[in-house]
Amino acid sequence: MNSQNLINSTINSTVKTIESLQVPHQQSIDSVVQRQSQLTKPEGALGKLEALSEFIAGVTAVPSPILHRKTIMVAAADHGVTEEGVSAYPKEVTPQMVKNFLQGGAAINVLADSFKIEVIVIDAGINIPSPIQGALVQASLGKGTKNIAIGPAMTYPKATETITRGIEIFNDAHSKRPTNIIGLGEMGIGNTTSASALIAAISRRKPSTVVGLGTGIDALQFERKLTVIERALAVNVDIINDAHQMSGPEKAISFLAALGGFEIGILAGIALGAAANRVPIVIDGVTSGIAVLLANLIAPDLKKFTIPSHLSPEPGHKVVLDILDSGDPMLDLQMRLGEGSGAALAINLCDIACRLLSDMATFAEAAVSTIDPIAEIEEHK
Amino acid sequence: MNSQNLINSTINSTVKTIESLQVPHQQSIDSVVQRQSQLTKPEGALGKLEALSEFIAGVTAVPSPILHRKTIMVAAADHGVTEEGVSAYPKEVTPQMVKNFLQGGAAINVLADSFKIEVIVIDAGINIPSPIQGALVQASLGKGTKNIAIGPAMTYPKATETITRGIEIFNDAHSKRPTNIIGLGEMGIGNTTSASALIAAISRRKPSTVVGLGTGIDALQFERKLTVIERALAVNVDIINDAHQMSGPEKAISFLAALGGFEIGILAGIALGAAANRVPIVIDGVTSGIAVLLANLIAPDLKKFTIPSHLSPEPGHKVVLDILDSGDPMLDLQMRLGEGSGAALAINLCDIACRLLSDMATFAEAAVSTIDPIAEIEEHK
Repeated sequence: MNSQNLINSTINSTVKTIESLQVPHQQSIDSVVQRQSQLTKPEGALGKLEALSEFIAGVTAVPSPILHRKTIMVAAADHGVTEEGVSAYPKEVTPQMVKNFLQGGAAINVLADSFKIEVIVIDAGINIPSPIQGALVQASLGKGTKNIAIGPAMTYPKATETITRGIEIFNDAHSKRPTNIIGLGEMGIGNTTSASALIAAISRRKPSTVVGLGTGIDALQFERKLTVIERALAVNVDIINDAHQMSGPEKAISFLAALGGFEIGILAGIALGAAANRVPIVIDGVTSGIAVLLANLIAPDLKKFTIPSHLSPEPGHKVVLDILDSGDPMLDLQMRLGEGSGAALAINLCDIACRLLSDMATFAEAAVSTIDPIAEIEEHK
Repeated sequence: MNSQNLINSTINSTVKTIESLQVPHQQSIDSVVQRQSQLTKPEGALGKLEALSEFIAGVTAVPSPILHRKTIMVAAADHGVTEEGVSAYPKEVTPQMVKNFLQGGAAINVLADSFKIEVIVIDAGINIPSPIQGALVQASLGKGTKNIAIGPAMTYPKATETITRGIEIFNDAHSKRPTNIIGLGEMGIGNTTSASALIAAISRRKPSTVVGLGTGIDALQFERKLTVIERALAVNVDIINDAHQMSGPEKAISFLAALGGFEIGILAGIALGAAANRVPIVIDGVTSGIAVLLANLIAPDLKKFTIPSHLSPEPGHKVVLDILDSGDPMLDLQMRLGEGSGAALAINLCDIACRLLSDMATFAEAAVSTIDPIAEIEEHK
């Protein structure tokens, strides 16, 4: 697993698997559409919930999907760029919040508990002297990334490793306890700086059009964050320009090495692993969004497996969803927490969409008429 | 209860109770805001979910509200106007769907079951030879309303009775099994015609700006529906003009008598009963919306107790929410089913909003830092 060749073979075989899958699986979608038309409701009356069950059938190739097991993977890592003062919170909050996840006190725990979603917490590279103890996946790639304002976040081999590690984490968890849907969550003080820099670099947009307020910084801190991102783009300009000449895994890994985070790379790998297993992927906010965008550079069909959850106030989030051609997210609740919190709400909607499909009575079962009253009226004239 | 005086005294005492309540209850809201600021998340990061728990605290006057019991009342009735061919479905579907509710096969059953919401079905005036058997509230006001295209829907005393009956139904259910939140659902072939006519009459807007496709009629049927509503407004013009000169209960009851439905009146009464008991009211689509608008004519503070759930594609729905000054609904899933289906999804969000408030750990409990890193950086310079 430490050899570079083996690492690339994991990515390559995953990409091959994704490309070999027929997604959307039209037969399964047709079957859902057919059943929807027989359920006791006017055609299309459940709106986006109907589209959702069709989408899930198309990804899973299951004509009547049920979400028996729902999972959110929350990857946590630190970011060297926090030393520039880009966040409203100190970097110590990353391990503190991870401990909070493990103790069940965070928003994602309350949401997951309510919606019967399993939360898997991953140490992707938290900056602490010794590993956090408890029920988390130990997959640390180091004590946080390097400061992107003064150089690349990580080496190219390290970036490659984050992706393969993400694939392996998904595959390992999925082989033990197969999941029917996966949400991507993250925790990492400073990671909206990394995400925004990546979005600006990949989309070639001005940083000022993609940077947001993160955890809630003020105007002065925002100016500082913007300047830091501009410096990160300037100092890494050669890697970025080279990356734009590349394609596939190389391109994604180059961007990730320059500006990324360990949790972003691991989430990209998790998305690839999920797609290769026909597991629908629910995007959370801007940081999980950029992870999916990187995964989609690696496997260009990946976006066909993804469901946007909510619209984050981070302007970069909309940019990512537009590039992925995701359509409008289901929810717009002005949430900006991360942790997979928006994904949890959307997974709950996916769950209910599938239940409606499977549990509602048909017109025939309930003996409800479908005849056209106007035809009747005309007849009686 | 059959005397007109007693009927009015029920309405009047309910209105008096509503007006006597301090809503929003600022002390409870302050307490929620205070706790929100201590929970392990950036300030405001849960967006509308935070606003929601604050709102519920303000209505209930409970500083840490928990929705132990959640209820949706689905009132069903028939409409004489269906003989004009305004719906995609025949009127027989009203009793058929009510039986479907009682057998657990409808969308509202699946939603309520998933979200642990109790559904109370009410026969408000279904057009059937003998009452439907089963676990429903028998409150029929007749075998459907009269055809509003040729005269008033019902008499003024009958309209008064629908309101009082709604208040009594709520009070009776609430005294037996107190609920912490109520959603308003309806079933009645033809009722979007009645609702649209009421909205046009009350708002003085052109019918063409408020009428929608209901259960999914085509362009030709839409033209017919529009013409029928214009006829209803013309034939009832004197009652409508008189109603505009009135205020309070008289005004609402006059509009209801001219163009309403039995389920609309009963839902208006349920809303009044709920408000008088400090129970937050979740609006579903256009038909429950007009019921709340009528209730708000009766008790002008009623809107302070209401939560919009989703945005219906019926253009009249937005008109109602604007008049009620409801703000944007939480969800826009292009649902147009009724039954309380949108309300069920919103009640689930209310539930999770309250759980987040009560179950998340505070910064102190989780030992998470709140210090400002920028202040730190400046210090070390």
